[in-house]
Amino acid sequence: MSKTDPNLEAMRHSLAHIMAAAVLEHWPDAKLGIGPVVGDGFYYDIDSGESKITEADFGKIEKSMQAIIKRGESFEKSEKSIEEAIKWAKDSKQDYKLELLNDLNRAGTTLAKDLSPDELGTIAKDTGQVNKVSFYTNGNFTDLCRGPHVAATNKVGAFKLTKVAGAYWRGDETKPQMQRLYGVAFKTQAELDEYLKNQELAAKNDHRIIGKELDLFTTSDLVGSGLPLFTPRGTWLRELLGAYSQQLRADKGFERVWTPHITKPELYKTSGHWDKFGDELFLVKSQESSDEFAMKPMNCPHHTQIYAAKPRSYKDLPIKYMETTTDYRDEKSGELHGLTRVRSLTQDDSHVFCSEEQIGEAVGELLEAAQTLYEELGMELKFRLSFRDDSDAYFGEQQLWDRAQDKIEEQAKHYKLDYYIEEGEAAFYGPKIDFVAIDGMGREWQTATVQLDFVQPERFGLEYASPEGLKTPVMVHSALLGTLERFLGVYIEHTAGHFPFWLAPEQVRVLTVNEKTAEYVRNVRKILEASSLDTPLRANQLRFSIDSRSESLGKKIKEAELLKIPLFIIVGEKDQAAGQVSLRTQEGESKIDLSKLSVHINKIK
Amino acid sequence: MSKTDPNLEAMRHSLAHIMAAAVLEHWPDAKLGIGPVVGDGFYYDIDSGESKITEADFGKIEKSMQAIIKRGESFEKSEKSIEEAIKWAKDSKQDYKLELLNDLNRAGTTLAKDLSPDELGTIAKDTGQVNKVSFYTNGNFTDLCRGPHVAATNKVGAFKLTKVAGAYWRGDETKPQMQRLYGVAFKTQAELDEYLKNQELAAKNDHRIIGKELDLFTTSDLVGSGLPLFTPRGTWLRELLGAYSQQLRADKGFERVWTPHITKPELYKTSGHWDKFGDELFLVKSQESSDEFAMKPMNCPHHTQIYAAKPRSYKDLPIKYMETTTDYRDEKSGELHGLTRVRSLTQDDSHVFCSEEQIGEAVGELLEAAQTLYEELGMELKFRLSFRDDSDAYFGEQQLWDRAQDKIEEQAKHYKLDYYIEEGEAAFYGPKIDFVAIDGMGREWQTATVQLDFVQPERFGLEYASPEGLKTPVMVHSALLGTLERFLGVYIEHTAGHFPFWLAPEQVRVLTVNEKTAEYVRNVRKILEASSLDTPLRANQLRFSIDSRSESLGKKIKEAELLKIPLFIIVGEKDQAAGQVSLRTQEGESKIDLSKLSVHINKIK
Repeated sequence: MSKTDPNLEAMRHSLAHIMAAAVLEHWPDAKLGIGPVVGDGFYYDIDSGESKITEADFGKIEKSMQAIIKRGESFEKSEKSIEEAIKWAKDSKQDYKLELLNDLNRAGTTLAKDLSPDELGTIAKDTGQVNKVSFYTNGNFTDLCRGPHVAATNKVGAFKLTKVAGAYWRGDETKPQMQRLYGVAFKTQAELDEYLKNQELAAKNDHRIIGKELDLFTTSDLVGSGLPLFTPRGTWLRELLGAYSQQLRADKGFERVWTPHITKPELYKTSGHWDKFGDELFLVKSQESSDEFAMKPMNCPHHTQIYAAKPRSYKDLPIKYMETTTDYRDEKSGELHGLTRVRSLTQDDSHVFCSEEQIGEAVGELLEAAQTLYEELGMELKFRLSFRDDSDAYFGEQQLWDRAQDKIEEQAKHYKLDYYIEEGEAAFYGPKIDFVAIDGMGREWQTATVQLDFVQPERFGLEYASPEGLKTPVMVHSALLGTLERFLGVYIEHTAGHFPFWLAPEQVRVLTVNEKTAEYVRNVRKILEASSLDTPLRANQLRFSIDSRSESLGKKIKEAELLKIPLFIIVGEKDQAAGQVSLRTQEGESKIDLSKLSVHINKIK
Repeated sequence: MSKTDPNLEAMRHSLAHIMAAAVLEHWPDAKLGIGPVVGDGFYYDIDSGESKITEADFGKIEKSMQAIIKRGESFEKSEKSIEEAIKWAKDSKQDYKLELLNDLNRAGTTLAKDLSPDELGTIAKDTGQVNKVSFYTNGNFTDLCRGPHVAATNKVGAFKLTKVAGAYWRGDETKPQMQRLYGVAFKTQAELDEYLKNQELAAKNDHRIIGKELDLFTTSDLVGSGLPLFTPRGTWLRELLGAYSQQLRADKGFERVWTPHITKPELYKTSGHWDKFGDELFLVKSQESSDEFAMKPMNCPHHTQIYAAKPRSYKDLPIKYMETTTDYRDEKSGELHGLTRVRSLTQDDSHVFCSEEQIGEAVGELLEAAQTLYEELGMELKFRLSFRDDSDAYFGEQQLWDRAQDKIEEQAKHYKLDYYIEEGEAAFYGPKIDFVAIDGMGREWQTATVQLDFVQPERFGLEYASPEGLKTPVMVHSALLGTLERFLGVYIEHTAGHFPFWLAPEQVRVLTVNEKTAEYVRNVRKILEASSLDTPLRANQLRFSIDSRSESLGKKIKEAELLKIPLFIIVGEKDQAAGQVSLRTQEGESKIDLSKLSVHINKIK
């Protein structure tokens, strides 16, 4: 999500060439597909004939790559006409390149429409270049390529090959299956090492694994994929996170509203979503009548209808609604993943209806709430201010945009945000701020946005009376966590399931050594029952259990540890005699007087 | 919902005859349709030709009815063969009766399938009687009728004609439109008077009117009918009621879970709901794939999937899940009404998974919670124990049913419930208890049920390990409020919008007399901000606002009264000087020292 570094991109793309050259050393008849930059590295699709490349071959490929790098071969650009290029592909028996070039040739002066962006990238980017295509050569290896590349093979930073996967040529199941060789690359070995360490940690912290270990959520084949069901422990996480996100906004004057999960299509026809996203909606049909509905994929149009329910005055503004509610989106089943890509998305959504003059304050309050939230959750935030560019893709008058963008940046400065501006990234209906949370493994996740909207209020005919006559309010859309499910997926991996004390589904488990302390344990229970935390979430009654089974203490501790319960209170006969209990956390063990237990618990962070 | 009183039914049915006889006195050519007992009275469908009957005619019709009643004519039963009956209908030019008799005749020895229950009721009930039909005569009036009737026209109690509505003959739009004359009737004039008074009150308390006055909810043509949207004030009601209902069960060990609002049809095919109610489901279709889902009309099948997510032991039982979540049902648009009949139904649902031995306790806990809830809400409850009869319509072994029903009645006795048993009213999957709440106008509303279920656990293959091997748990379904929307509709009418203090969306409004008390009002604000109620709902932070506009006190009071805010705190200069505030409730005004305000608020019921 941070701006891409063009130099790093060139390094990764150059490594794709180097990898292809190395493969050709060992598989001289291999035929090359395309080799773009992707994610944290690069890949190349290769057809090595009968003798398949496996991950066991990575050693020798990497060795050959290191040799090419060491030789410091320069990347030389040359150009050929398409006819010459086609001859080159035929001579070098590169059938896949030949197909791409033929497609390009057939398309004449415009680019072939059926070439994917990745494919186009390997040939030529600008329509002005289609009569000539460019090639890059290093050493003996020449590849059809639009570039750019680093100057020479010894300028590619540090890399590692990571995996081989099957991939149909041009993503088409009817075409030959090739092998996609993946690598990752960074500017320095240190960056690569940290990345690999984080990758390992991320695999270990996979929220689907931890979710099962901690009994947080489940899925059912009968219910369907992308539709997780939350167990009691996972439901606590949802509820507490949602409640805290709402509390932060209630403190700024937001009020809860409630809207149904379906609507007549007319709502989205009016808002404009039907034209833009109508195909992506889940449609709902009555079997008894011709009634038709859509499941809501967002909540703003519903909220406008509450605003519109009665006349509003400038004295009523800003009006601030919030609703934590589940939206449904028709994600492709192949793209679903644990909690981070689901079909049932619960948003901690909110909408401010305000005058233009109130935009700055409305945005500022939300930024403040977001900063408090992520600080409390122990995650760093970055902010992208997504502004308009000079194109005509935007609705609403230019001056309004300018004033609004100024106000947004003013607030970003006021709250000393780590922000950058990206022009051309605004929504068509207004500028926005995208929040990027950085997890414990250095990964960036867009979690939420604050968006100004000059369009929907107009389309829905929203109004307020002012001394100057009827005016149209501005809407400020915002979600702090974004999607609860997705955030939880990220947060489980970020914390490895060690949640902050206030958020842990089970905060305290009392473990007895034997039955002789039963009476004393009742006193402990009373203290815990009366305990409640007030920060960061108010009136957060303590969640605890008492394990007084006649099992060994060791077994009880092990079970509680597996659930990553933050505090164990161990009660033995000696503790009872001393009027104490033993506390055990990740940090170690200590004793405390029973009389001080409640105060102690209230202070735990 | 209470068992019908056969004598009252006979009175009402006899009044339908008396009304028809009275109409014939004034419209001698009127043709009669059918005249059954309905709701709190009776109706008769009448075709009076060109000269329509209007409510302005009720005076003379009622007068004629009173004369018939006064004459004490006995109701004489007679029988005719169908041929004779057809001749009677022809001779008396009763075309509609003739049509019914012809239909019956054509159907031979089995009852005509296309006769509705109401129509059948006017002819003959038992298949054994179809060769003969019965007639009842009082005075000069004879009607085709299965009876029973009271002995004579002077035994019909007290009645009142209420309205005329249009009704197509046999509910068929292509058939003639008749006029349906409605009346209500009770055993005594006092009962009738009370009923009429309550009807008037109910019309005044219509929750749709109060909902608008108190700004509780709205609807939108763009969203659709039966899909109310809740404003901030209405959302408070939903949230507080739902939270209290959950708190009562959390105190009994229930834990919250969360499930999505849609599911693959496979879930309902497994549960058995697909076969039984498949036509009534809202179907959800993906536009991008062939995926198909259904919106959940209930939550039990989803909850079974959380139970089924891991192995369970007898030591884990009972497992108690609760979820307040919105279900969707395809109600016909003609039947939708305000909040009491909606398409989006939020249920305060819960499911216990327990062993057979634990049924009694599970049921008892829920009854206790329900009693506390309705007592706190100021509504009386009646309970119907719906048991099986000897038919073979029930799943599961007879002995299990017997034991379970015994346990249910035992609990009903233990909690001293006002209950009655109705055999043949059980669900096919188990016996149940239906809760009937009685509102301030004497109306009965089935709000919720506790249901045992021997079938779904088996169909879903749910299990738990016990020392005797794997066993199947029993499920106990329950909702305390039933449907939040429906309950709210009832409760708004029950309270006329005067909600208990703990539940009022805005509990306190501070009204200033002028600006001179600004500093003092800040102190009042601090006290209110720190105030929180702990009964019946815990940690219920005070909801208040301060009206310090420069409007007259009278205007401010009037606005607050319209919103039915339970407590006004009026702050004037004299109050400030005396260190007091003025309190104003529905009961009247009083003064209180500021230092005692917080304690006072905590005690308000």
